[in-house]
Amino acid sequence: MSRCETMPYRSIGICLKPGQPQLGEVVRTLKVWLEDRDYDVLLGPQAADAVEETGLDRSDLAEQVDLMVVLGGDGTLLAVARLIGHRRVPILGVNLGTLGFLAEISQEEMFETLEEVLAGRFHREQRMRLEVRVHRDGAVVGEYLALNDAVIAKTGISRLLDLEARADGVEVTAYHADGLIVSTPTGSSAYSLSAGGPLVLPGFEAVLLTPICPHTLTQRPLVLPADSGVEIRVHQTHEGDVRLTVDGQVGCEVREGDFVSARRSEHPVELLVPPDRNRFEVMRRKLRWGER
Amino acid sequence: MSRCETMPYRSIGICLKPGQPQLGEVVRTLKVWLEDRDYDVLLGPQAADAVEETGLDRSDLAEQVDLMVVLGGDGTLLAVARLIGHRRVPILGVNLGTLGFLAEISQEEMFETLEEVLAGRFHREQRMRLEVRVHRDGAVVGEYLALNDAVIAKTGISRLLDLEARADGVEVTAYHADGLIVSTPTGSSAYSLSAGGPLVLPGFEAVLLTPICPHTLTQRPLVLPADSGVEIRVHQTHEGDVRLTVDGQVGCEVREGDFVSARRSEHPVELLVPPDRNRFEVMRRKLRWGER
Amino acid sequence: MSRCETMPYRSIGICLKPGQPQLGEVVRTLKVWLEDRDYDVLLGPQAADAVEETGLDRSDLAEQVDLMVVLGGDGTLLAVARLIGHRRVPILGVNLGTLGFLAEISQEEMFETLEEVLAGRFHREQRMRLEVRVHRDGAVVGEYLALNDAVIAKTGISRLLDLEARADGVEVTAYHADGLIVSTPTGSSAYSLSAGGPLVLPGFEAVLLTPICPHTLTQRPLVLPADSGVEIRVHQTHEGDVRLTVDGQVGCEVREGDFVSARRSEHPVELLVPPDRNRFEVMRRKLRWGER
Amino acid sequence: MSRCETMPYRSIGICLKPGQPQLGEVVRTLKVWLEDRDYDVLLGPQAADAVEETGLDRSDLAEQVDLMVVLGGDGTLLAVARLIGHRRVPILGVNLGTLGFLAEISQEEMFETLEEVLAGRFHREQRMRLEVRVHRDGAVVGEYLALNDAVIAKTGISRLLDLEARADGVEVTAYHADGLIVSTPTGSSAYSLSAGGPLVLPGFEAVLLTPICPHTLTQRPLVLPADSGVEIRVHQTHEGDVRLTVDGQVGCEVREGDFVSARRSEHPVELLVPPDRNRFEVMRRKLRWGER
Repeated sequence: MSRCETMPYRSIGICLKPGQPQLGEVVRTLKVWLEDRDYDVLLGPQAADAVEETGLDRSDLAEQVDLMVVLGGDGTLLAVARLIGHRRVPILGVNLGTLGFLAEISQEEMFETLEEVLAGRFHREQRMRLEVRVHRDGAVVGEYLALNDAVIAKTGISRLLDLEARADGVEVTAYHADGLIVSTPTGSSAYSLSAGGPLVLPGFEAVLLTPICPHTLTQRPLVLPADSGVEIRVHQTHEGDVRLTVDGQVGCEVREGDFVSARRSEHPVELLVPPDRNRFEVMRRKLRWGER
Repeated sequence: MSRCETMPYRSIGICLKPGQPQLGEVVRTLKVWLEDRDYDVLLGPQAADAVEETGLDRSDLAEQVDLMVVLGGDGTLLAVARLIGHRRVPILGVNLGTLGFLAEISQEEMFETLEEVLAGRFHREQRMRLEVRVHRDGAVVGEYLALNDAVIAKTGISRLLDLEARADGVEVTAYHADGLIVSTPTGSSAYSLSAGGPLVLPGFEAVLLTPICPHTLTQRPLVLPADSGVEIRVHQTHEGDVRLTVDGQVGCEVREGDFVSARRSEHPVELLVPPDRNRFEVMRRKLRWGER
Repeated sequence: MSRCETMPYRSIGICLKPGQPQLGEVVRTLKVWLEDRDYDVLLGPQAADAVEETGLDRSDLAEQVDLMVVLGGDGTLLAVARLIGHRRVPILGVNLGTLGFLAEISQEEMFETLEEVLAGRFHREQRMRLEVRVHRDGAVVGEYLALNDAVIAKTGISRLLDLEARADGVEVTAYHADGLIVSTPTGSSAYSLSAGGPLVLPGFEAVLLTPICPHTLTQRPLVLPADSGVEIRVHQTHEGDVRLTVDGQVGCEVREGDFVSARRSEHPVELLVPPDRNRFEVMRRKLRWGER
Repeated sequence: MSRCETMPYRSIGICLKPGQPQLGEVVRTLKVWLEDRDYDVLLGPQAADAVEETGLDRSDLAEQVDLMVVLGGDGTLLAVARLIGHRRVPILGVNLGTLGFLAEISQEEMFETLEEVLAGRFHREQRMRLEVRVHRDGAVVGEYLALNDAVIAKTGISRLLDLEARADGVEVTAYHADGLIVSTPTGSSAYSLSAGGPLVLPGFEAVLLTPICPHTLTQRPLVLPADSGVEIRVHQTHEGDVRLTVDGQVGCEVREGDFVSARRSEHPVELLVPPDRNRFEVMRRKLRWGER
């Protein structure tokens, strides 16, 4: 699930949460700290804005770095993971506010942590992603990488939707629900949990199908093997628009008759985590899981 | 909860589910059947269209009848109940397709049932309603009667909402959720059930607060006395529009800082039900409740 | 739900949690404090033991006092409520450790609270109870008053049970489950909540039927009016013993063919509560309800 | 997950559900049918009783056959799987009454199915099992193979238990609950589902921890990788006996301070299944999963 190795980083990217220009000082200090240690530092657009420099276009940035430091929360990290796409660039998430599921390092721990990371003492934890596609009339009209989840749901007043799920070409079940969440283990502590799904150890590989407010009493969340080829067909939309939303951030319209496919991507995200960290502790601290 | 009395109906309204012009024959036959028995028959707009007559405006209709026969499903009955408003007009719901929670009588049983109803042998079951208001800057900007529920939720991609509930002026709890359902016992088998709420015997009086996909592990559905003055304040909308939706059919926008009040209306709906019917059987048949 | 009145208490009972002889000092101080104010003080057996006096028999005690101070937790208060039976003796619950749902007053607040109580400034909150009976071959073989709940469940390895519920003589549903909890609103935050039941505002009157681990996907908790005459018939016990347990403390065996009846007792418990207390706050503090 | 191969069966065992002596005719017919095709037929004790022959001791039987036909339901198949232990004997489950999750073949399909099986046209579906051990003072005092689940729970009136779970030596969470179910994917449609656990595709490999009636609002079912070394420590038993129950059939006492370990056995069970069967259909038919 994870392995520890010498990581000869040379070029390090810094990405900043949008709308935080007041964090220029943090970016500047981090940049100087890294340059003092002879690393090339490349800034994403928000980070560049915050220090009033000219940054790189986001996709150029992902192309040119071999380590990405993300200053922000889980949302920023999800966006950066999408930006990195199929490249194998490890991510270190530094949360600027409250502890994140993905951005586990606090601002106070940042430099101490970076010493460890640059010395190759951090693990690279592989997190599986889903390759999500929207199919219409034989063509692919949308394509996404999901680290948390792909949600098919309505946007209007009436939320009810008729969906049918297949796995590896075989009928699984029909959903008469507000929507359906196709989630990774990483996403199991996010929206899927709110909808009644189980916690799945991040790092484990599996696909979860969690219905949102099923209008039948007999639906339950389902856990499938990671390599299941899942297909969700939109049977009836009643009225209003149906959307696919990936990681709560991007997506597209889905029409009656379209189907959404989701399968494990060959390109996991690599998160940098301390070698001795208890993987359950983040869940306990974030969720107050099991607290009395 | 119900009482049986001689009901001197004189003027009977017929309402038809919209978009069913092919049901002209049913409307015509029912009209003739009633007129043969010396009742005045008044048609709502859809029923009039179906028999190519000129119908009454809906609110005029409600004003002039003392019994309303609804041909359609639960949705049609919810709309007619709203139309009747504060008037005390009993409703007989005839479902044209599958059994409804509210429209319990099938088309086959219609005439036999009407004989009983007109002979005063049916019960009038009182179903409590909620008087729902949206308050903004000291003014009421929306006002509704809910027989099933009032739902506060987002319409956009990001569904997360911060709400605060008060009852009789006292803080109840805060919701960090996709939305909140304020439901009557009648509505307990509808959307609230999908969101994890309990079944409440229709005819009982209570108010349910059922959160939709709460993003905290510690939320649970709450049952309050029927006379609780519930207030829901919209604290933070994050992004996108928040809407109040009543009975899944009507509603309005709710803005940050608005609050929605809900309290038992003094004007229950009166449903006509057979004197000997088992009130749990409809739930069992509709929900497959308890089925193995 | 509650009312405030001048309460001419003369004789005050003190009950102590069993197995706490080290609390002699608390009992002694309280006794002296009350006697200094000219109240007669009567001690229950545990309280008497703790101060090495001779106490009254428990039922004599209940007969002779017009206010009962309970030093202990919710468990002790449940036992004292049972002891009081049909008498109208208000109870003040002082928790010796952590906050209770019923024993809301802390040891530090005890004397200050008693000043208020004795001055008649506390509310008497009525809490409905269930009169629970086990019927066998036409005879009543067990009879109890439940402030929290009556649980029908197995005691052996195999936990599965077939039950049938009726309300007011009408079939409600069948349960194929580990057991069934018949709960008051007071009990809704106890075992029923663990089994997935809703929170019901204590002070409201209703009866909850919450199945324990139903082996069918279609079961849901049910809320009935307080005056429903509930009957639970034990259809099949498979193997092992079935027991009725009241408030987690007392009970008896239930055999195949027996039925358990539960209806609102005419004798509620009266809890003394501060006039200005927020009834939801105890739930929030005890359950971390709604906490993020 | 499954593979198809020529299976040169020579010696076939027949096991019968206990307490079904009236099924002598089925056993006799099956025995003759197999002997006519030159297979050696060995009978388990119940099957032998039913035809008034002398059968083999159960463990001798498992030693000597290379295919086991089980006549009964899921319970009988669970018991036979335990009997087979570490041996690699494929099982064909024939249900004598209602469809089973494991005993999928009906009595009517038996001979037709056997033709296919003996021709090597059935799949051997591997179902992971858990090796479950009870540890006390450094010694193993109980050891079991679980195909469905291992349940740690109380047998007395008070059901509350304090447990602590660890995985691979690391603290997972604490449970304040009626008990804990450690389940395989095969067991996910059994007791774990009743307690709120997710469905996991049988044939997938994973371990589920599902608490029974957790007395904290923050517990959720957890899915772990199949190779997790799970340990459950019994911290406090309050009062009454704690038992480990494996597959609802066998088990032993667990004392305060004991711990129960569960890890994937190297010896899965091999179920014979038709090559073209939809693995979700059994779940749908048995559970009415997703039914409206």
